[in-house]
Amino acid sequence: MIVLFTDFGIEGPYTGQVQARLQQLAPGVPVINLFSDLEPWDVEAAAYLLPAYAAEFPSDTVFVCVVDPGVGGSRPGVVVSADDRWYVGPNEGLFAILARRAGRVECRELPEPTGVSSSFHGRDVFAPVAAQLASGLSVEGVEVSATCLDRPDWPDDLFRVVYIDRYGNAITGVRASAVDASQLLSVNGQQLRSAQTFGDVGVGEAFWYANSNGLVELAVNRGRADQVLGISVGTPLSL
Amino acid sequence: MIVLFTDFGIEGPYTGQVQARLQQLAPGVPVINLFSDLEPWDVEAAAYLLPAYAAEFPSDTVFVCVVDPGVGGSRPGVVVSADDRWYVGPNEGLFAILARRAGRVECRELPEPTGVSSSFHGRDVFAPVAAQLASGLSVEGVEVSATCLDRPDWPDDLFRVVYIDRYGNAITGVRASAVDASQLLSVNGQQLRSAQTFGDVGVGEAFWYANSNGLVELAVNRGRADQVLGISVGTPLSL
Amino acid sequence: MIVLFTDFGIEGPYTGQVQARLQQLAPGVPVINLFSDLEPWDVEAAAYLLPAYAAEFPSDTVFVCVVDPGVGGSRPGVVVSADDRWYVGPNEGLFAILARRAGRVECRELPEPTGVSSSFHGRDVFAPVAAQLASGLSVEGVEVSATCLDRPDWPDDLFRVVYIDRYGNAITGVRASAVDASQLLSVNGQQLRSAQTFGDVGVGEAFWYANSNGLVELAVNRGRADQVLGISVGTPLSL
Repeated sequence: MIVLFTDFGIEGPYTGQVQARLQQLAPGVPVINLFSDLEPWDVEAAAYLLPAYAAEFPSDTVFVCVVDPGVGGSRPGVVVSADDRWYVGPNEGLFAILARRAGRVECRELPEPTGVSSSFHGRDVFAPVAAQLASGLSVEGVEVSATCLDRPDWPDDLFRVVYIDRYGNAITGVRASAVDASQLLSVNGQQLRSAQTFGDVGVGEAFWYANSNGLVELAVNRGRADQVLGISVGTPLSL
Repeated sequence: MIVLFTDFGIEGPYTGQVQARLQQLAPGVPVINLFSDLEPWDVEAAAYLLPAYAAEFPSDTVFVCVVDPGVGGSRPGVVVSADDRWYVGPNEGLFAILARRAGRVECRELPEPTGVSSSFHGRDVFAPVAAQLASGLSVEGVEVSATCLDRPDWPDDLFRVVYIDRYGNAITGVRASAVDASQLLSVNGQQLRSAQTFGDVGVGEAFWYANSNGLVELAVNRGRADQVLGISVGTPLSL
Repeated sequence: MIVLFTDFGIEGPYTGQVQARLQQLAPGVPVINLFSDLEPWDVEAAAYLLPAYAAEFPSDTVFVCVVDPGVGGSRPGVVVSADDRWYVGPNEGLFAILARRAGRVECRELPEPTGVSSSFHGRDVFAPVAAQLASGLSVEGVEVSATCLDRPDWPDDLFRVVYIDRYGNAITGVRASAVDASQLLSVNGQQLRSAQTFGDVGVGEAFWYANSNGLVELAVNRGRADQVLGISVGTPLSL
């Protein structure tokens, strides 16, 4: 299975171009679009989503991960093997938290691409590598220390909003296991208590809960937390 | 074929997570995303869309239907068999109109889920059941009377807007067969006449017509009906 | 491979309905959604995107192309064979630039559809024809001169914005090969110089570049060109 984890948008044309390339190079391999609406240029936010949402995928899944403010520049592309899954994308921090939490990590730096576009490495560089991996083929590149993936200045849990979903719920970079259910979370001057799920609070009430991928999520029962709380990707929170 | 009929959004991550689960449990079964942008929490609106858009699918199609304001609460999940198609989802009214119009309906109540997330039954409960059905396997649960699906207070045709499409056209919960083509429809103080199709009225003119799935739809030739008429999901109409 | 190139939107229901029809009539043929968010009714804009984005697809790819302000009217549907790829859709100019640039073009006019909806020919007419082509079957219709596809009043390069992508970048109808890299482009009173890629200009700076499909694209390094430049689909540019 190949999984797309990008800021490309799904309506056109980039996700379709990547899917077409994968279809040509790895025909028959299913392609799942996990996220196509990651916050553009916000590599840090995506880095905290990746391990939380990758964990439910089977061994040998290949993730194409692209949030790439440095596209066309000299940041190297990498292939990461972590806990029996594969990850391909530009190394600008996107794999930092994943690598830090993984039991076993290996990293390979892709050769400098030649003869391809300078602005669409997702299609021209990372999709072909993903297709090779999904087909069980080996990949060019030099093995490097996985420490090159880390961003030592990034915390283990990121106390800010990293994604707003279609309901207006705000996913944060904090693992629910890092916060006690009795703790209040403070956001935009408001104190939120935790609840098990939506129906446990009144209609219109804001709360936080452990979402179905283990992250702290801010929500409102039958309402939009982004509007009720005045928050967006980047809004900080605190205990 | 498995068909998704939800308010999950398609850009991420919920639709992709459901597709991945289906791919693992029913590999090779095609998955079609019919609606991913149903109005959140508006079960009634979705209930009038479902029979109109399900009718064109072949026998044995399995629909995963999730508009679920009560997620995590005690509303039961159901498997509905209606006119040789399968439907899986939470029973909060979503299958009421479908069941009422179907020739033959059977309903099975799913057991209370254990060991799964409290907020994402689409992935953890309904997708696995859909995969079983699509694979020809039997499903756990207790057969119950299909009357549990109905909402007797809901009318046979719902005189309000239930969906706005990408062009700004407004789909209503009224079957075109329930209205005579000579009748005017009143919405926001404006009287709309019917037309066969867009080109039959002047550019910028509002009208109603029988859409390609048999529902009354409000439209404007080369314009956005939602903006021209000042309407949104929920806006009432009358004869 | 079947490729969708439409203004249907991807969230629901039209793209899903077309995909379901294709799945039934040409099971197993991969379907790629290239563009689902073309500007509604702007056939001209789409006509300049099509040859730029079709060129990377393999021989025998079948494109379903629908931007159809005249749906339900008398404009004929056509099947176009150009440079070993197939295109199906309404003939309102969408294939004009493609045909003009192709080495070899053949065109067949589809018979007037009967017994189908008047507002959703994408599902009822063009998808079935695409499925036949993708299955290697012949298609009904009368061979006509490919000159019927052209719009002689349309220029070879269209100096306006034809698409805004998810990052706010503005794709134009101008081939990068038609402009010298030293030339300034004028848009909304601002002069833009060219750059190789995003990292070659300062953060927040607007520029133009040859995008990964050979079109002139207006962009801002780590910013939204549509907002910075105040532009949208239709905004003219000049040398």
